[in-house]
Amino acid sequence: MTKVRVGGFSLSIDGFGAGPEQSLTDPLGKRGEELHQWILGTKTFHEIIGKPDGATGPDDDYAARSMSGFGAFILGRNMFGPIRGEWPDDVWKGWWGNNPPYHAPTFVLTHHSRDPIVMEGGTTFFFITEGIETALEQAKAAAGNDDVKIGGGVSTVRQYLQAGLIDELHLAISPIVLGIGEAMFTGIDLPRLGFNLTERIVTEHATHIVLAR
Amino acid sequence: MTKVRVGGFSLSIDGFGAGPEQSLTDPLGKRGEELHQWILGTKTFHEIIGKPDGATGPDDDYAARSMSGFGAFILGRNMFGPIRGEWPDDVWKGWWGNNPPYHAPTFVLTHHSRDPIVMEGGTTFFFITEGIETALEQAKAAAGNDDVKIGGGVSTVRQYLQAGLIDELHLAISPIVLGIGEAMFTGIDLPRLGFNLTERIVTEHATHIVLAR
Repeated sequence: MTKVRVGGFSLSIDGFGAGPEQSLTDPLGKRGEELHQWILGTKTFHEIIGKPDGATGPDDDYAARSMSGFGAFILGRNMFGPIRGEWPDDVWKGWWGNNPPYHAPTFVLTHHSRDPIVMEGGTTFFFITEGIETALEQAKAAAGNDDVKIGGGVSTVRQYLQAGLIDELHLAISPIVLGIGEAMFTGIDLPRLGFNLTERIVTEHATHIVLAR
Repeated sequence: MTKVRVGGFSLSIDGFGAGPEQSLTDPLGKRGEELHQWILGTKTFHEIIGKPDGATGPDDDYAARSMSGFGAFILGRNMFGPIRGEWPDDVWKGWWGNNPPYHAPTFVLTHHSRDPIVMEGGTTFFFITEGIETALEQAKAAAGNDDVKIGGGVSTVRQYLQAGLIDELHLAISPIVLGIGEAMFTGIDLPRLGFNLTERIVTEHATHIVLAR
């Protein structure tokens, strides 16, 4: 059965899920690279960016799991790009070049409609203006028996959590404090939403936490 | 030189520093014991409650450090007891019996004045109605060359952090999610306040984090 999962989602110790001040030169926000340090050296990530070698071990296991088994992805608009408001033209096609790492239908939540974009490697971006439930219905239909990944950012994950629509949540808590950014947990009652802690694996670069229901 | 320290302060993964619904039967709030699991089995804690044996190791090292070297303590009123508003009488003398674990002058922040209470073992409770700066001045004067501990709870620690008055912060992040409670980090920009991560030690029961400036 299709599960709705969050995977490989990096947080700081103080619970911020992205660095502040996202921009073209800082797609992950300031200090975003530190936040994602656990994944940057892994074999899985190296393969995605076409780099040889890379480390195996728990960080890599979680990296692989966070990118495999998915038949569709859902992204908040800010994860798709830095443009806010109306789309000025059709030039922006995501942060990832011609061949994005999704290789599956990818649904972008936005208030501004836009035609789908067929990319290389199996990724097609669909722009959904009817809300998170509609995006999830379409993603589930597209995923078949595979899982649906809620890719982020923080606001998107929080909306799906609050709506009770997420089955599993893998967080990688990096040993840094960010101080500002989008707070992940404020107002999110995970036990009341039915989540239990099912895994906790600690590496040099992260505390991997899996919550499931 | 006297440092102002927070030590042995337990948080859940989702950043809550006490269980909800504190009461006479739940002084740490609901699920408070799970939150403090890392300390309950230590030699240091066993000594405090007069129990033999107890585990040594990193949890115990942090437990010992969180109770030693202090010449004065500051507590928020809710840490002192469950009574809110005016003191009805002089009966309540804290959660800890006749011989509290402080063994030093202990300043309780409150809006309602009350005479000092001399306890056994060196603890005297002073009730401070003039605010956190006044409490800290008096605590520093009482501590001499020793450190001052901000004992909690969350709201008290947050107020001293925001005022820039804390030098070192030891947090024990327990592998549980609480969902509700007092959020530690919301609106607290630790890097801007000058804090750096100086220690990270992981045990079965907690991720020990020290932030200093």
